[in-house]
Amino acid sequence: MIELVGFDADDTLWHSQNHFDAAQAEFEAILGRYLDLSDRQAHDRLAAVERANVRLFGYGAKGMTLSMIETAIELSEGRITGQDIGRIVDLGKAVLEHKVEVMPGAREAVGAVAARHGVVLITKGDLFHQERKVAESGLAGLFHRIEIVSEKDMPTYRRVLAEFNLPPERFAMVGNSLRSDIEPVLAIGGSAVHIPYASTWVLEAEHKVDLESKRLLTVDALAAVPEAIALLAERAIGEPA
Amino acid sequence: MIELVGFDADDTLWHSQNHFDAAQAEFEAILGRYLDLSDRQAHDRLAAVERANVRLFGYGAKGMTLSMIETAIELSEGRITGQDIGRIVDLGKAVLEHKVEVMPGAREAVGAVAARHGVVLITKGDLFHQERKVAESGLAGLFHRIEIVSEKDMPTYRRVLAEFNLPPERFAMVGNSLRSDIEPVLAIGGSAVHIPYASTWVLEAEHKVDLESKRLLTVDALAAVPEAIALLAERAIGEPA
Repeated sequence: MIELVGFDADDTLWHSQNHFDAAQAEFEAILGRYLDLSDRQAHDRLAAVERANVRLFGYGAKGMTLSMIETAIELSEGRITGQDIGRIVDLGKAVLEHKVEVMPGAREAVGAVAARHGVVLITKGDLFHQERKVAESGLAGLFHRIEIVSEKDMPTYRRVLAEFNLPPERFAMVGNSLRSDIEPVLAIGGSAVHIPYASTWVLEAEHKVDLESKRLLTVDALAAVPEAIALLAERAIGEPA
Repeated sequence: MIELVGFDADDTLWHSQNHFDAAQAEFEAILGRYLDLSDRQAHDRLAAVERANVRLFGYGAKGMTLSMIETAIELSEGRITGQDIGRIVDLGKAVLEHKVEVMPGAREAVGAVAARHGVVLITKGDLFHQERKVAESGLAGLFHRIEIVSEKDMPTYRRVLAEFNLPPERFAMVGNSLRSDIEPVLAIGGSAVHIPYASTWVLEAEHKVDLESKRLLTVDALAAVPEAIALLAERAIGEPA
């Protein structure tokens, strides 16, 4: 029995990582004017700077932009020009400004799940940017609640479920990130539907999901989500709560 | 009759603007190495850049840092070095890292109000940074709810009150910002206690508050808040709802 279904937003209901990837490719092209770097070196150093800064910046495009600037100054040993740093600031602005492209079948999938269960949008990152994307997506009205959180970990999911007064056994999460959408939900006793996305941010790629879990299903498109939820709901009835 | 009291956080329950002011003073000192600028020119240009960027960045230290970098590149006509831009990034990090200094009497004032009314913390800005400050302040447990919002305007206050199922006439807000804490609350029919802070961010300084309103009291310290709320509650009984 599943009463509430959570949907991730970025790279689940709409595209996001492709914009970050495009910014990073441009960033590497700018750095290439200063250094004979393999792409991998710039990429790895940026990932390390982001990893160190995430405890201070949290997630989102503004933090990425500041980490890019820090990485560019460091790798160019201070030789990067003000004009090129201005270009990096503009890359960050482009990520914040891009139009929201809703995934095919998103509205139908959420609507079909909402006909049988409560539905909540659970997204992490920059509050201001996420609110804009939720509004622009046109999907906000489908959800019973929208939760913009700073981290998607076990305490966060427990807090959201406590607000709904619901045990984890009656909750399923739908998303693309094994680290943020699947691992913590399975760990607290919930169910999950994984929809892989073409590209995953390096800091999102680390996870400890048991891919053989009976409480996890993997599908390749949003259209398959309602049926996956129905199957997980049947399984949840069969399990002790 | 007042059932719910909202408390602002930055510059009401703990110091914040002094850290932003210190970063800006350092920023102007860095720029002074490139330009013969009066402080006012750097200050005014940064304010204009921040005003243009706030629709994209929202509030908080990361957006301020990116706006400082943009302003520095523009005013120095690209001559600013990578090393000095690295110093500006560090100024932003220092704002994000500073220890929370709770105002004298904050715990007692919130506690006294909480003994008679519901109390909610309503703060705007960067989700990640605000969560850290709330946790570090040690005050979180005093509040019935904590709302971190992207903007403090009439729709935001209406949404918060709708979640409490409360008409605005039964709500009072306590804060330092006439623009964010007082003006929208009076405009929807609520009451407010203003506690001026020594320094106000230029974008916060614009407001249209009727300082003669009977639903507004101004006090000079948190210790005076419980009595001010009691007085506003008496006045609210006398008014039609």
